[in-house]
Amino acid sequence: MSEWGHGHPSGAGRGLFLSLEGIDGSGKTTQARMLAESLRGRGHEVVLTREPGGAPGAEEIRRLLVEGDGARWSPETEILLFNAARRDHLERTIWPALAAGKVVICDRFADSTRVYQGAVRAQLRAVVDSLHRLMIGTEPQLTLIIDTDPEAALLRGLARPGAEDRFERFGAAFQAALRGGFLALAREYPRRCRLIDGNRPPEVVGAEVLAVVERALSGVARP
Amino acid sequence: MSEWGHGHPSGAGRGLFLSLEGIDGSGKTTQARMLAESLRGRGHEVVLTREPGGAPGAEEIRRLLVEGDGARWSPETEILLFNAARRDHLERTIWPALAAGKVVICDRFADSTRVYQGAVRAQLRAVVDSLHRLMIGTEPQLTLIIDTDPEAALLRGLARPGAEDRFERFGAAFQAALRGGFLALAREYPRRCRLIDGNRPPEVVGAEVLAVVERALSGVARP
Repeated sequence: MSEWGHGHPSGAGRGLFLSLEGIDGSGKTTQARMLAESLRGRGHEVVLTREPGGAPGAEEIRRLLVEGDGARWSPETEILLFNAARRDHLERTIWPALAAGKVVICDRFADSTRVYQGAVRAQLRAVVDSLHRLMIGTEPQLTLIIDTDPEAALLRGLARPGAEDRFERFGAAFQAALRGGFLALAREYPRRCRLIDGNRPPEVVGAEVLAVVERALSGVARP
Repeated sequence: MSEWGHGHPSGAGRGLFLSLEGIDGSGKTTQARMLAESLRGRGHEVVLTREPGGAPGAEEIRRLLVEGDGARWSPETEILLFNAARRDHLERTIWPALAAGKVVICDRFADSTRVYQGAVRAQLRAVVDSLHRLMIGTEPQLTLIIDTDPEAALLRGLARPGAEDRFERFGAAFQAALRGGFLALAREYPRRCRLIDGNRPPEVVGAEVLAVVERALSGVARP
């Protein structure tokens, strides 16, 4: 399979597709925002987006996923809805931006589905992977995993006003399992994933994130 | 794979799973209703349901599929949303009813996705089949395909008050392609599918439908 997967409409795009991953409260959303600002300051065209969501239709599917009773969908139905939102997000937002040579920064992507659903039930990981190959294909060129102490991340997540992410309800043990899932993912995809120590002040984390991304950008066309 | 596919939670159920298929305006919804009444009159416990929808969550996904601009989702995203709704429908409505020994009559099921998406683009049929094997598994034991002249069906469909089915917009050529798709499906699954001539008065069609279903019921536990 090519770098972009079978689903990309125009072969290899000219842009750069980055994702930020990590447990809730890891600081990845702050880092995504800081990175977008830094890159724009350096003259790059940046699309800052997130999952689930990132396109009008995908945001409607997001509402089905994050609102209401946490038990309203089975893990299997949830996986299908995440992939429906992801496919729409790719078609309407990510692929066009990459084709136009932009940098796409995505707050969560398929790795979150792999890790979260895999933590719910280990056998689901194979289902997630098969579905990804069948309907999505595309992977980020670079995935920054912000690795933060689960207890600290949980407190940060819970303190957030209006936090809608119901995964936080699962508590510290689930957060620790998720952290383990992201660490395993970094070992599984060493070429694409970079672990970033998130237990430091945001500016320090941000400086490392920017340095890693600038190295990746030096390998693609400059603006 | 077992009769019920890998997803059924309790192995072989005791009930009977029937689907009615056909183009819009073929008369299948009327036939589904008449069949439910006849079977109830004979002492069967019947669940009459439909796709997309048939469970509270699945009905919410249905709204995303049938409301708004017909071009709001790509065929791939649409396939994922249909399967998300189908999985929810199976888990919340169909599997529990079959486990309780009921007769489930479903107005459209996976065959509609095969035929409609396959008529949009032939290569999508393989995607639909792979996704079905991965996430759904279950097939009806008996599928009644109500085969009706496309021109007559189109007129009937368009005359219906508040028809929300946007497939009707595609017109007579698309309806004819869909009819061809259902005929091919009947040849592909001869054990499960029965073609019923829908170009007759509803009572005549209904008598044949009931006779076919009673033969199928004589093969399972009686009420």
